[in-house]
Amino acid sequence: MSRFFSDKFAALTPYTPGEQPRERRYIKLNTNESPFPPSPRAVEAAAEAAERLQLYSDPTARALNEAMADLLGVEPDEILFTNGSDEILNFAFGAFCDDTCPAVFPDITYGFYPVFAEYNRVPYKVIPLKDDLTIDPTAYYGGGHTVVIANPNAPTGIPLSRCEIEGIVKANPDNVVVIDEAYVDFGAESAVPLIHKYDNLLVTGTFSKSRSMAGARLGFGVGCKALIQDLNTIKYATNPYNVNAMTMAAGVGMLADEEYTKNNCRTVAENREYTAKALRAMGFVLTDSRANFVFARHPQTDGGTIYRRLKERGILVRHFDTPRIDQFNRITIGTREEMDTLLAALREIIASNKSEL
Amino acid sequence: MSRFFSDKFAALTPYTPGEQPRERRYIKLNTNESPFPPSPRAVEAAAEAAERLQLYSDPTARALNEAMADLLGVEPDEILFTNGSDEILNFAFGAFCDDTCPAVFPDITYGFYPVFAEYNRVPYKVIPLKDDLTIDPTAYYGGGHTVVIANPNAPTGIPLSRCEIEGIVKANPDNVVVIDEAYVDFGAESAVPLIHKYDNLLVTGTFSKSRSMAGARLGFGVGCKALIQDLNTIKYATNPYNVNAMTMAAGVGMLADEEYTKNNCRTVAENREYTAKALRAMGFVLTDSRANFVFARHPQTDGGTIYRRLKERGILVRHFDTPRIDQFNRITIGTREEMDTLLAALREIIASNKSEL
Repeated sequence: MSRFFSDKFAALTPYTPGEQPRERRYIKLNTNESPFPPSPRAVEAAAEAAERLQLYSDPTARALNEAMADLLGVEPDEILFTNGSDEILNFAFGAFCDDTCPAVFPDITYGFYPVFAEYNRVPYKVIPLKDDLTIDPTAYYGGGHTVVIANPNAPTGIPLSRCEIEGIVKANPDNVVVIDEAYVDFGAESAVPLIHKYDNLLVTGTFSKSRSMAGARLGFGVGCKALIQDLNTIKYATNPYNVNAMTMAAGVGMLADEEYTKNNCRTVAENREYTAKALRAMGFVLTDSRANFVFARHPQTDGGTIYRRLKERGILVRHFDTPRIDQFNRITIGTREEMDTLLAALREIIASNKSEL
Repeated sequence: MSRFFSDKFAALTPYTPGEQPRERRYIKLNTNESPFPPSPRAVEAAAEAAERLQLYSDPTARALNEAMADLLGVEPDEILFTNGSDEILNFAFGAFCDDTCPAVFPDITYGFYPVFAEYNRVPYKVIPLKDDLTIDPTAYYGGGHTVVIANPNAPTGIPLSRCEIEGIVKANPDNVVVIDEAYVDFGAESAVPLIHKYDNLLVTGTFSKSRSMAGARLGFGVGCKALIQDLNTIKYATNPYNVNAMTMAAGVGMLADEEYTKNNCRTVAENREYTAKALRAMGFVLTDSRANFVFARHPQTDGGTIYRRLKERGILVRHFDTPRIDQFNRITIGTREEMDTLLAALREIIASNKSEL
């Protein structure tokens, strides 16, 4: 830290992203990336846009907003695109939380939420997950807080139903409820259809997971026009050209090939069930994940040990050294081949651990 | 504004970017874009990166930092790349300004500075330019403020010398001095060589102007390691993957073709002098711009009128309806052909205005 760093940020603890090692080729099952490349239509559109980079990108992202609005059944001005969904989440913590309206989210969820709260210098409160790692929706009823819930939740992958989400939104009429749907396309219900019924609902999403565009950085928020206007105020006060021209073109290309996205999501869901079944057969205990990852612990083998032994074997998964979940590993669903390599490695690790006992 | 928008932002007035009209083809001389496409090496690199978008971009931007460090003669950890230079400027206002250390900048400069201050809720003070629209460096000596100066200044294009910048940095040993060098490559002196001498100097730059990558969004800051660490704390607390993979690849491609950039800058400077001479012959009064634009007023023709008549003729320039400069227009230097079209249009406008008088 320099001697010039403002005291207001002195205690700010940044988010730690998953490892992105460059020194060795790993099977990367640690950051919930898609095993599939983006659609050829996205790749071509991005390459074309690269030839005209001397011109600024469209700050209103009109083409992208219109394509997404069509897909979601909303109006273009009910959507705001951002530089990844971290940006729209950060905007939301700034726009809708303050001393009179703290944030509230589960104790175990996306690790960035407390960081966004601290960066925006807004108070926050966490509500523990139940013992089975599920969210109790009624715990978020009418607390005078801005509610932030990942659905499905991370890193558990466990979803709430749209009806349960609606219960939370309805029970907080004077506060914004943010539903972070980064993983929704792999088997959960989106709350987007509720935005025309409730003016306090903001749904966020990303092209990083189901749409194979993690490296392009494209996130979005969907809500009533007034909420989107507020978030636009923040955007135009920080970075009006926040989405670059290549990403914008790639996004339009992806949306023109929804069949491709749907097929990929179906394959991921199949591989998830295949992997979960094999893991259970090995004695692993898993949450009922509807995301593009499983969350698993083995009663006889330490979670940190599994993480390290997999890494030695060239397989990266995500381990959180966090109370309540330090026995788990979060494992991204890759190709069937990658899953088979993972499962073979885990069989070895479990067996050698048994022989050591 | 929604009923949920935090009071802390209720008075926030966003920045208004230059028009990006889509309804008609204009000769766009209003947002200081380059008339040249990016280097073919950048285009190819971006297109290749588009094929692997399913993976997150490198949050440390290692390849880009190393290439830029080589070019600038600094260490890779003395550089931070961001999603355009607006992002690093916003980070700097947050990191280095607060109630005990307000920001200070000229009354006439990049219009985003007061917006960054307001978004970060830090107080700021403006110091008027002298009557000839130049900056008095001594006015920024030792005021206990974080100093922010665009060099060359916008929209005047007038530079300070490196020696004058050093005077400001030296006279503020306990405060950060931010030098925004968005336009430095067109004929001004960079302050980057001073960063090893002063721990309170942050130089920011962009690939949007001299490197033809406005649509890619790539900005950077250069300073001592501790300053860069502070800015990294903000980055990792808001958006760790802030630079996408295609832009990163394009940036490395551009840096591998510095001859291309240098040639383009030379051509722009030549066209600027050509345009300035022709404008002076028409009776225009110009600042001594070293940027990729001229800033001009005509003693007999109203600045707003010139802006509107040019727009009617399909030529967009930037007019600021701001005290002291409302008689000026800022005109981006395009190709020689675009400049000739502009000059012909201005000759007509001036002549028809004279005949009306």
